Amino acid sequence: MSQELRAVEWTGTGLALIDQTALPHRTTTVDVHDVDTLVDAIQRLVVRGAPAIGAAGAYGVAIALLQGAREGWTESETREAVARVREARPTAVNLMVCVDRVMTRFDDGLDAVLAEAAAVQREDVEANRAMGAFGADWLLKRIDADRPLRILTHCNTGALATAGWGTALGVIRELHARGRLEVVYADETRPLLQGSRLTAWELVQEGIPHFVQADGAAAGTILRGEVDAAIVGADRIAANGDTANKVGTVGVALACADAGIPFLVAAPTTTVDLSTPDGAAIHIELRGEDEVLEWGGVRTAPAESRGHNPAFDVTPGRLVTGLVTERGVLEVSAGELPGDRLR
Amino acid sequence: MSQELRAVEWTGTGLALIDQTALPHRTTTVDVHDVDTLVDAIQRLVVRGAPAIGAAGAYGVAIALLQGAREGWTESETREAVARVREARPTAVNLMVCVDRVMTRFDDGLDAVLAEAAAVQREDVEANRAMGAFGADWLLKRIDADRPLRILTHCNTGALATAGWGTALGVIRELHARGRLEVVYADETRPLLQGSRLTAWELVQEGIPHFVQADGAAAGTILRGEVDAAIVGADRIAANGDTANKVGTVGVALACADAGIPFLVAAPTTTVDLSTPDGAAIHIELRGEDEVLEWGGVRTAPAESRGHNPAFDVTPGRLVTGLVTERGVLEVSAGELPGDRLR
Repeated sequence: MSQELRAVEWTGTGLALIDQTALPHRTTTVDVHDVDTLVDAIQRLVVRGAPAIGAAGAYGVAIALLQGAREGWTESETREAVARVREARPTAVNLMVCVDRVMTRFDDGLDAVLAEAAAVQREDVEANRAMGAFGADWLLKRIDADRPLRILTHCNTGALATAGWGTALGVIRELHARGRLEVVYADETRPLLQGSRLTAWELVQEGIPHFVQADGAAAGTILRGEVDAAIVGADRIAANGDTANKVGTVGVALACADAGIPFLVAAPTTTVDLSTPDGAAIHIELRGEDEVLEWGGVRTAPAESRGHNPAFDVTPGRLVTGLVTERGVLEVSAGELPGDRLR
Repeated sequence: MSQELRAVEWTGTGLALIDQTALPHRTTTVDVHDVDTLVDAIQRLVVRGAPAIGAAGAYGVAIALLQGAREGWTESETREAVARVREARPTAVNLMVCVDRVMTRFDDGLDAVLAEAAAVQREDVEANRAMGAFGADWLLKRIDADRPLRILTHCNTGALATAGWGTALGVIRELHARGRLEVVYADETRPLLQGSRLTAWELVQEGIPHFVQADGAAAGTILRGEVDAAIVGADRIAANGDTANKVGTVGVALACADAGIPFLVAAPTTTVDLSTPDGAAIHIELRGEDEVLEWGGVRTAPAESRGHNPAFDVTPGRLVTGLVTERGVLEVSAGELPGDRLR
């Protein structure tokens, strides 16, 4: 993926979203000119990844203003439409933070709203670049190896998941750019295979050597000593460092703790929600059962079976060796809590 | 699944194997009258599960004798054919143990071989029944709950995986029979979905309430307190209690340890290999990359991606709260090691 290719792009009249449900086989875009289409795109995961959803939500305020002007909405109707965008997915905090930020310019009109949304997007890319450098520096200092590193990641946290570049995958790209990366183990990330479909696709674009593996393989790969560190993204980080991220993340963290290797979370400070004291207060989205009972529309489980499909899990802060933000690395498990350091 | 339905059945002239690659959608059998077909069936997972493979291997000696008689093999050629069956899969020890046991009757001819293979199968069912009772007793004593239990399992360890009844799933069936089971969380078990396809199918046959979930969901479900205990099977258990089982098992064990709930392994003593000192000495089968890169023959990862596909992982004995065998429960993590107690 070229650095310029954007998962979320403002076209001048609407949003062009890369349809991430069609990757890696087809690269198509969904054009968004109304709020219903945007909410649907967020809920169907056409656009996914907390920072990318945040950017899409930021521009969603402009979508609502434009649609309201076309359709003669009252201000109250327009604000209600924005509220629907803001609540399209419950776990990621970036969506709410970014919508709220842009809404501070609501009264100043469309140009001001668009300028704020563009700033959200630009600052996310800058934050990603800073995280990449901080994370790579920290790993190379912490892991005293005279060979390139073997890094495990879960889900997709690259350019597709952000406004550009990537959070955890940004750190991986930085290690690769420095010639200090041997291989990436990419968990496939069931049920929707963001690792196999999206992370692997981005790694192919970058020419980064990688293995795709079943999520269940992660703990064994780590315990056998085949991995130097794991690094993931986040959807919401509580004040005590508890981190909500894609389902399967906490299993990776437990294996890293057992093996004594670093487990890093890379996320912009907009993902830290200081009003959430700990993980118990984070609402975990339960998605439809069919995602786990079917595959590509074909039922794999018996017709009578029920599915349990939490989209996220919570990794306790005590398992987070380092939280990489655009301001630096907090060693959470050693006591550097976001609630103390990021207020 | 009725108790009488058998994954492995001697028809009088050959083996009838339920084709487990076609479940849950089609219930068909593969008829085996020659060694090549048997080796292929074991390697393609038409028959799978360490005890079921052991039973199939036991009858494999008879298959080789019958084929040798038809095709005029020398004794040496017949023994070589048996050796190919014995080595069809490298991780499960039951296959080797069962073939070796039946081979002690090789010189006594077909009838003696068949009688020994039938004994292997009958004793496995008896062992399963004993494990069910010991495991259920132990769980109900250990977990002081005035409500039915919520049990998580991984892969398939039921009648399909054994000569009948089941190991870990046998304990679950026993809890259900006693009215002490609330629900089963069945990990889907990527890449080949033995949980979603086979365990769920068996649970449906038994009318046992269950949820299928992504493997990555297991740790979070356990850490959120939604599970009272996890119980799995085993392919090989070392003298120190280190346990090779389906990939993903050690992640379940780590989560149980972190949550402070029991992690049980249910396996007949034939799965304990006292000549293997610890998990480091267990050969882990690496299967084809396509199993993880594809789904039902359709590529999901990019064409350029490589796959990493270990079929098993090793759970350290320190994480095994209880090893349930037909002789009783060894509290491995508390120091009751198979090498001390089962010699």
